[in-house]
Amino acid sequence: MTSTTTTSAAPPAPGAPGHLMAAEIAEQPQVWRRLLSGPGAEQVAAAAERVRRAAPRFALLVARGTSDHAALYAKYLVEITHQLPAGLASPSTMTAYGARPDLRGVLVVAVSQSGGSPDLVRSTEVAREQGALTLAVTNDPGSDLAGAAEVHVDVHAGAELAVAATKSYTAQLLALHQVLALARGDDGRAAAALPDLGEAVLAQEPRVVDIAARYRFASRLVTTARGYSYPTAREAALKLMETSYLSAQAFSGADLLHGPLAMVDAQVPVIAVVAAGRGGAAMASVLPRLLQARADVCTIGTPEAVAASTTGVVLPAGVPEQLSPLLEVLPLQQLALHLAVARGEDPDAPRGLRKVTETT
Amino acid sequence: MTSTTTTSAAPPAPGAPGHLMAAEIAEQPQVWRRLLSGPGAEQVAAAAERVRRAAPRFALLVARGTSDHAALYAKYLVEITHQLPAGLASPSTMTAYGARPDLRGVLVVAVSQSGGSPDLVRSTEVAREQGALTLAVTNDPGSDLAGAAEVHVDVHAGAELAVAATKSYTAQLLALHQVLALARGDDGRAAAALPDLGEAVLAQEPRVVDIAARYRFASRLVTTARGYSYPTAREAALKLMETSYLSAQAFSGADLLHGPLAMVDAQVPVIAVVAAGRGGAAMASVLPRLLQARADVCTIGTPEAVAASTTGVVLPAGVPEQLSPLLEVLPLQQLALHLAVARGEDPDAPRGLRKVTETT
Repeated sequence: MTSTTTTSAAPPAPGAPGHLMAAEIAEQPQVWRRLLSGPGAEQVAAAAERVRRAAPRFALLVARGTSDHAALYAKYLVEITHQLPAGLASPSTMTAYGARPDLRGVLVVAVSQSGGSPDLVRSTEVAREQGALTLAVTNDPGSDLAGAAEVHVDVHAGAELAVAATKSYTAQLLALHQVLALARGDDGRAAAALPDLGEAVLAQEPRVVDIAARYRFASRLVTTARGYSYPTAREAALKLMETSYLSAQAFSGADLLHGPLAMVDAQVPVIAVVAAGRGGAAMASVLPRLLQARADVCTIGTPEAVAASTTGVVLPAGVPEQLSPLLEVLPLQQLALHLAVARGEDPDAPRGLRKVTETT
Repeated sequence: MTSTTTTSAAPPAPGAPGHLMAAEIAEQPQVWRRLLSGPGAEQVAAAAERVRRAAPRFALLVARGTSDHAALYAKYLVEITHQLPAGLASPSTMTAYGARPDLRGVLVVAVSQSGGSPDLVRSTEVAREQGALTLAVTNDPGSDLAGAAEVHVDVHAGAELAVAATKSYTAQLLALHQVLALARGDDGRAAAALPDLGEAVLAQEPRVVDIAARYRFASRLVTTARGYSYPTAREAALKLMETSYLSAQAFSGADLLHGPLAMVDAQVPVIAVVAAGRGGAAMASVLPRLLQARADVCTIGTPEAVAASTTGVVLPAGVPEQLSPLLEVLPLQQLALHLAVARGEDPDAPRGLRKVTETT
């Protein structure tokens, strides 16, 4: 395997380890533009209208892997902006255990890049039989999951070739945000600023390359955030594990103080996401405890939070908190890429993984 | 700090590191007996009657840390045995973000050893104001959480002195199981066999001491399970992190195949929980993939699953799957204790942690 052993600010050249992931990370603002206009936007509006008419009493989200973090983001949106209870479904209860709950008046949202995982397809079929309004969010309109759900939204991310999902993840976030915003009568226009802001965030890549060099020899790493940014912390941890084989664990800032703080020391870098807004404000009590534990803290967030940390990347101001997760994850995807390359790995082909995981 | 540097089959002597945790682990069968008869049982029956009369359309669970794993167990019970949808609430949506969902017809269960965490108290108050039937499961009837909820169940575990929760966790599992069983008209008698079985499982401690010696120099560890046993995997990971400062990560067997498998190799032991029943059966496709990745697999479960693994502890036969989590966690608590002591740590006083964590 060809591999570079030093970090570099330039993206991997065609054929070099990580070039697929690098290209897909860079493509995201363009993916978002596609989803915000044209056929993508029409499908989102139609799905939103179906959700609005159904007026669900609560929502269940079904997903696995990276898509589970998009589902968790949607759970926050449903709870906070729709003022409805929401939960993440455990697919095994409907597949392995054969549970058949009464789901009339329930919105069931299944999220999957490929739309191919049999347990998600089966859970969606059961949910539909049990009376739920089923919505599938996938990157493949011809997938089994798209066919199983009553309503389908294609995230229009284009073929995703790197095993580590990047552009399909933020496209899922955007599609879910827009469906839910339009369903509650919001015009969804706040998202229009995202593509340009995304390009500005991606342009900070040299800074991320420095951070990757800093953490090159770390074997464990913790990510943390609260509220809307918590799914970002989860996704960053998964991406780092997938590509760099380090042990990365995500904790809500509150849960971190309930036990896992014990394993944080000077050898365990902590990546904190502290965006402007209530979730970031709720992290105020967490950062001092981390620094007290001698952690090396890398913050993605407000200028103030980054200044109070060891290192970090500043996010643009003026973004509504619920849209910030699309931007926050970009430097963390870049970090997963550059850390993997620095460690001599190929993030496009992680060992032991396939692009479509079939679980039953 | 006094510490032993070799593992020993004898429990830590009074005053030695880990003696509090050892005593509380050993006490569990007696705690369960107390909860299954006397005032504990009466309170459980009264709570079950309140839940039965309310006939909730779904359930939300609120908890943090170890108690969150008891809540996750209750989620599986609600989904599978009550055939109702259930979700784990994100407390921050009601505290940091001020969400006020319509919770009429919803059962909200808050689980906390101390009953003292302000965000759980506040979430319970809000849930009650919003029309939910609120049930608090705590180890302190005088706590704020017990006072905030409409119905309270005391798990009668007695004062828990070790920072790492053990007896309060299995007492929570048992209380939640009994409330939910009685609420759906089950006589709850299946649990009567648990205390004797628990003693038999605890008596396998010398085997656990050998396993602790095996993993003494591991810096990372993965735990995995599916279905009812998944909360056990989560709790084991938290316990190992709290006491031994190694990085322990829990994954559902299905999620493990969606990415984190990449970080498993011969240096990363995997603890699998494979109990008799559907959750264990759903692990059948996971074990071969782990062994293929050259993982050292320690299985807590059926004789067949243990025989197919590198090492492990066999669970007694004939236990209904939904009660197995009380037994499965016992050797894992012992492992956390003995691993910590072997590594020269004091599991009774983990660095950076306090017994009651106040998050807002």
